[in-house]
Amino acid sequence: MKDKPWLVDQITVIGPGLMGGSIAKACMERALSKRLVIGAREDELALLKKSGLNAAFYNDFGLSVKGSDLVVLCVPLEALKPILLVIKDFIGPETIVTDVTSVKREVISLFSEILTEKVQWIGSHPMAGSEKSGFESSTSRLFEGSITILTPGSHVGSQALDIVKTFWEKLGSKTITLSAEEHDGLVSEISHLPHLLSAVLMTTVSLRSLTVAGPGFRDITRIASGCPHLWKSILLANRHSVYEAGKKFILDLEEALKILQIGDEKALLELLNKAHIRRKGLDKK
Amino acid sequence: MKDKPWLVDQITVIGPGLMGGSIAKACMERALSKRLVIGAREDELALLKKSGLNAAFYNDFGLSVKGSDLVVLCVPLEALKPILLVIKDFIGPETIVTDVTSVKREVISLFSEILTEKVQWIGSHPMAGSEKSGFESSTSRLFEGSITILTPGSHVGSQALDIVKTFWEKLGSKTITLSAEEHDGLVSEISHLPHLLSAVLMTTVSLRSLTVAGPGFRDITRIASGCPHLWKSILLANRHSVYEAGKKFILDLEEALKILQIGDEKALLELLNKAHIRRKGLDKK
Repeated sequence: MKDKPWLVDQITVIGPGLMGGSIAKACMERALSKRLVIGAREDELALLKKSGLNAAFYNDFGLSVKGSDLVVLCVPLEALKPILLVIKDFIGPETIVTDVTSVKREVISLFSEILTEKVQWIGSHPMAGSEKSGFESSTSRLFEGSITILTPGSHVGSQALDIVKTFWEKLGSKTITLSAEEHDGLVSEISHLPHLLSAVLMTTVSLRSLTVAGPGFRDITRIASGCPHLWKSILLANRHSVYEAGKKFILDLEEALKILQIGDEKALLELLNKAHIRRKGLDKK
Repeated sequence: MKDKPWLVDQITVIGPGLMGGSIAKACMERALSKRLVIGAREDELALLKKSGLNAAFYNDFGLSVKGSDLVVLCVPLEALKPILLVIKDFIGPETIVTDVTSVKREVISLFSEILTEKVQWIGSHPMAGSEKSGFESSTSRLFEGSITILTPGSHVGSQALDIVKTFWEKLGSKTITLSAEEHDGLVSEISHLPHLLSAVLMTTVSLRSLTVAGPGFRDITRIASGCPHLWKSILLANRHSVYEAGKKFILDLEEALKILQIGDEKALLELLNKAHIRRKGLDKK
């Protein structure tokens, strides 16, 4: 690896949406591979060819992964299975396959079932993104300052894991390695439940109050403008963890409402102080 | 009014924090008055004098309002009463008094009790701001694109109301007029409950999950970094409305969790779609 200027010879990115487009742009800018291949749907090819990406474009996913050292699947959860079924016969035991979806138990079981242990597969979840979607919103800087959670198969060698780690680090992301179960539990709290809260808040307020919404309300509901289909799949795939996190949230909210009801100034200040300090802590990262 | 280049001869802003500082800067830049006076605490004067604000500075609030046509009180709710008690003997029947606090029933009853109907008082709530606070975060553009809710006393003449409307419009804000009760109900939904949700979410998640927080979580919890003391007063002053809004939110969240639990794809997509469309609608404003 050290005598080459690039991380691997060939990287294939399948699905040039916000995530895939951003990864492809970053791979090109940072020269992560000698050759970059994009697998895309027929209707996406015209836009890609005009994008200035220095890559080969295929709408045949099988051909797009042939000879690749690293395949990054950037498609929604429900599109993963058919693509895995197509590409499995075009990749060898040395190929590393990863994805970018927000749930990992389900992905890991698909990888395990379809790719089996003959392929090096590692789940990736970059905690980056935007409420926007599509290649037109993609940017090579999307992952800068982010954290990517890796969930490698238990059979995966340390060299493959190192390549995936280095891949994300070169894109500007720190990495941590977790089991798929740990991952799904943590993100239910920090990403999936917050999305549901934001959506429920957006629908629970009266239309009249929306006419006076200020910047705070815009911030708290920004994620509710994310793609409904994408989030439906994410929430359903991780629904047991989100349900548990939601129940815990309701208990804590009921406690806070009780504090308000009895006008307990001290307890309310404690809650707000704790939230304030924790949130300030996030800004320092 | 029309033959003068300014809105009124003298404006006094009491309390040069984020809101008061922003108002003072905007008043100066847009030449809203011939003379601008700032009432501030002794310890705030040094910073103000170095700020480049073309204004007179007083730490005697009584003197600061003498001869003013418009007095804008930019102090937290709990500081309003002592200041009203001080200034009431320095203002005449032609003076217009307004404030910028986030709750209006309590303010209106203070105005009514202390200033009585001899003074023209109008509650103002600019739906603008930031999780930051203090004069150092103030900016003359803070109100651009915002909405300010006005709650005038029933005795207030149309000329006084017009002046306050024009004042906010010149600062870049649209205005709407509501009763204090309507105001407190709407903002409990759109501002106060969201603040509580953000604070509860910030405290309910595990510290471990905070280590992987992404941009969505930062957005939804941004308002939780607001000043705990300020928000404690706001939430307590409007606690009955916030409690009701909170209970309604819990019912809707429980419904959403039930949808998740039974895996009702159609109902989940409907919820996310409704939230998505409503949130996109906010961006267009």
